[in-house]
Amino acid sequence: MKQDKMALFRPVLTVVAFVWILGAMLALPPLLLAVNEGAHTTRSFVYAAAAFFIIGIWLRSRARQQRFEVSSQQLYLITVASWSVLAVIGAIPLYAAMPQLSFCDAFFESMSGITTTGSTVLTGLDAMPHSLLLWRGLLQWVGGIGIIVISIAILPYLRVGGMRMFSTESSDWSDKTLHHAQEFIQNIGLLYLGLTMLAMGCYWLAGMGWFDAIVHAMTTLSTGGYSTHDASMGYFNDRPLILWFASLFMLLGSLPFSLFVAFMHGKKNALLGDSQVRGFLAFVMILILLFSIERTINSDLDFFRVLTHVAFNVISVISTTGYASDDYTQWGPYAVIIFFYIMFVGGCSGSTAGSMKFFRFQVAFILLRNQLHLMRHPYAVIPSKYNGHVLSDDIVRSIVAFSFYFAFIIAAIALFLSLTGLDFITSLSAAATAVTNVGPGLGDVIGPAGNFSTLPDAAKWILCGGMLIGRLEIMTVIVIFTRTFWRT
Amino acid sequence: MKQDKMALFRPVLTVVAFVWILGAMLALPPLLLAVNEGAHTTRSFVYAAAAFFIIGIWLRSRARQQRFEVSSQQLYLITVASWSVLAVIGAIPLYAAMPQLSFCDAFFESMSGITTTGSTVLTGLDAMPHSLLLWRGLLQWVGGIGIIVISIAILPYLRVGGMRMFSTESSDWSDKTLHHAQEFIQNIGLLYLGLTMLAMGCYWLAGMGWFDAIVHAMTTLSTGGYSTHDASMGYFNDRPLILWFASLFMLLGSLPFSLFVAFMHGKKNALLGDSQVRGFLAFVMILILLFSIERTINSDLDFFRVLTHVAFNVISVISTTGYASDDYTQWGPYAVIIFFYIMFVGGCSGSTAGSMKFFRFQVAFILLRNQLHLMRHPYAVIPSKYNGHVLSDDIVRSIVAFSFYFAFIIAAIALFLSLTGLDFITSLSAAATAVTNVGPGLGDVIGPAGNFSTLPDAAKWILCGGMLIGRLEIMTVIVIFTRTFWRT
Ligand SMILES: [K+]
Ligand SMILES: [K+]
Repeated sequence: MKQDKMALFRPVLTVVAFVWILGAMLALPPLLLAVNEGAHTTRSFVYAAAAFFIIGIWLRSRARQQRFEVSSQQLYLITVASWSVLAVIGAIPLYAAMPQLSFCDAFFESMSGITTTGSTVLTGLDAMPHSLLLWRGLLQWVGGIGIIVISIAILPYLRVGGMRMFSTESSDWSDKTLHHAQEFIQNIGLLYLGLTMLAMGCYWLAGMGWFDAIVHAMTTLSTGGYSTHDASMGYFNDRPLILWFASLFMLLGSLPFSLFVAFMHGKKNALLGDSQVRGFLAFVMILILLFSIERTINSDLDFFRVLTHVAFNVISVISTTGYASDDYTQWGPYAVIIFFYIMFVGGCSGSTAGSMKFFRFQVAFILLRNQLHLMRHPYAVIPSKYNGHVLSDDIVRSIVAFSFYFAFIIAAIALFLSLTGLDFITSLSAAATAVTNVGPGLGDVIGPAGNFSTLPDAAKWILCGGMLIGRLEIMTVIVIFTRTFWRT
Repeated sequence: MKQDKMALFRPVLTVVAFVWILGAMLALPPLLLAVNEGAHTTRSFVYAAAAFFIIGIWLRSRARQQRFEVSSQQLYLITVASWSVLAVIGAIPLYAAMPQLSFCDAFFESMSGITTTGSTVLTGLDAMPHSLLLWRGLLQWVGGIGIIVISIAILPYLRVGGMRMFSTESSDWSDKTLHHAQEFIQNIGLLYLGLTMLAMGCYWLAGMGWFDAIVHAMTTLSTGGYSTHDASMGYFNDRPLILWFASLFMLLGSLPFSLFVAFMHGKKNALLGDSQVRGFLAFVMILILLFSIERTINSDLDFFRVLTHVAFNVISVISTTGYASDDYTQWGPYAVIIFFYIMFVGGCSGSTAGSMKFFRFQVAFILLRNQLHLMRHPYAVIPSKYNGHVLSDDIVRSIVAFSFYFAFIIAAIALFLSLTGLDFITSLSAAATAVTNVGPGLGDVIGPAGNFSTLPDAAKWILCGGMLIGRLEIMTVIVIFTRTFWRT
């Protein structure tokens, strides 16, 4: 029995050890910046990096993994454990370097970072040591590539929310597929790095300082949304080009990275030939256009200025980035509703974006259309296909279950939040913005002009759970808490 | 072609003619009351009754139906047409008798009546002519029995939201099944009448005047919620027995009437042996208990007083009746969330209650549990059964589609409402309360202490649509607006 348990957890331990070592390496760039800032932050990052490294090496020696062959049960555990550990790692330097910060706040900020949610409890960002701002950016950047890897290399092999539709082979996860996937994942990593550097250059050309350009590039591509200014991207409102570059790279961050790689390898049709990408881009463009026309008619602003801000804020929310250039909840009651709705859309599968993802809406649309047809023609045989894949019962049930759990988790979290005393709109929008990994909520407290620092600690812990569950496609986390999961 | 169209609409015309004649008969009891009230309301009801009768007879002569054999296409049309016509019929006496009322308001009040929603645009109910108050009560009472008949005699034969699970035979709808069902429906009608008279007697014994007892009995059993007082049932707050009788009969109104009939015919196990009834009652009781304990601890009121009001308001919302004894949105932020959630539950199928209905949640729960099991044991074969029925793919898809359309319709209506200028919470809760047929919304405007009269006309028309769509199980209405529906 003891032996069995060790065998179960050994691969988990191996990955967790790797995560600690990764944490140590991540702490090095901020450490370099900290050296110029004074003893306080330097000491925090030195101690943190050393501790992470020692813990990692120690765990690695404990794990002693020979062959890397894992069951689906272990894949679930690896995914959830590595993200939880990363959240702890992220919190430690913040907690150490900011004496006024509670551990709850540090953990919230870190979880919000690695899940690329971007809700913040910090104020006074403009005056904050650069090492800490870079650390927040790095957490989101790593969180972004982390979720892409998981959604390409792990989720398709599990029965999570219909992601199986995107698996290249139906075989189980093993050494063979891992090695097969390794090169592919390296390509994606290089692409992610390349796009980030491109964004950096564009931001710099458009007028950002180098440090702002670096951090914002990392939080844009990862659709994370952490900024170096309390005003978020609103700080750059006098430079529309910055907002347009941000819109472009947020949009790129919410497209499927595997199709980018295919595109780079000469498959010219890989992106625009994909139903999800085409549908998503069309939806975003039509929404921006209609919204801009309405805003231009009902305000005294010129069309280009309106278009800049509408495009920026719509893409920011739909890509689940959560930057704000403006308090869009002041645009009118219908704007609040529209921004609330598009929080649930999210980007495409296999991107850094969170939330439901566009393909689930497309599949739901096909199902709903077919159902109406069947009501009138009960014996019709309707072929259900999406993007060239047959919509098998297996995948359909998986997508449906995902949607139900998604709604159920948001409802449950909103209820728990209301029990801590938060009002209706704050509870509901905080739950939604956490699970969808968008960042800002609605209402006076946590709206785009607000901040999460005033929430009670209990609410922050609940939201940490919500962000993690949402980031890992809901059921990956829930399944671990079922009895059947632990039955051998 | 002309001939075809006539053949298609002839059964529809026959039923619509019957509805007009029914309207004329319904106008007679208020007419009797009106005679004592003065010329104004008397004239309205005399003219209305006469007009309804003439229109009915004329349509009947136009229809000249020989055999009554209808297709599923015609059943959809019959259902939607008869409810729409009933809404027009209900509006006419209100519009005629109240010169200050716009037709939009009269139609809203009527639609809210026949769909047993109970949202009102009228104030000063306490001083209103009894004939008009009785008319409102009658509209709800007829709406209540109407929906029971439709959900037993029509919906199971169509592919609407998994109602097929409750069909006794899988054959198509025809003369044979109609005659077979006729006796059954007569029994249900008698039971509905009997329960209403019982409620009347109980209300009277508990201290209501006769007129109040009659109207409230009708709007309780139909889970409609129209009252004869602006304070709704809060008018009787000093008589807890009235609130308890109301709770009892609202609960009875949200149980499946076909099981009542089986119970009366000696099947002692018919009600409590049914999974839906058992689950629903257990859910309601546990919720009331937990809620009451919390309220007793966090207030200085005694347990019995708290229990009375919690039970009354919880049952009022979950049964989609919508009476209020108290402004429950003042009970705390978590209460707002809980009442918002239980709006979506509704009662059991085949009752007068609206909303999603309890069995759909139970089926969803089974699916979600199975899905978690499959994630860990992908090749397990899990038998899906509910209440003794195998959950076929057919029924599951139908229930899932219903849930998605339900959410989609509420979201769309909330968006349209926000475009008329309503704020977030008013738009969202008005859409929800209309589609679920509950009645009161949330927020200052349309909350349990508020009123729908201040909404713009456009919002009222949109809500009329929402109430009708919600009452007729969503897809019954939507399907008519598809191209495929009209293709032969
Ligand atoms: K975000
Ligand atoms: K109602």
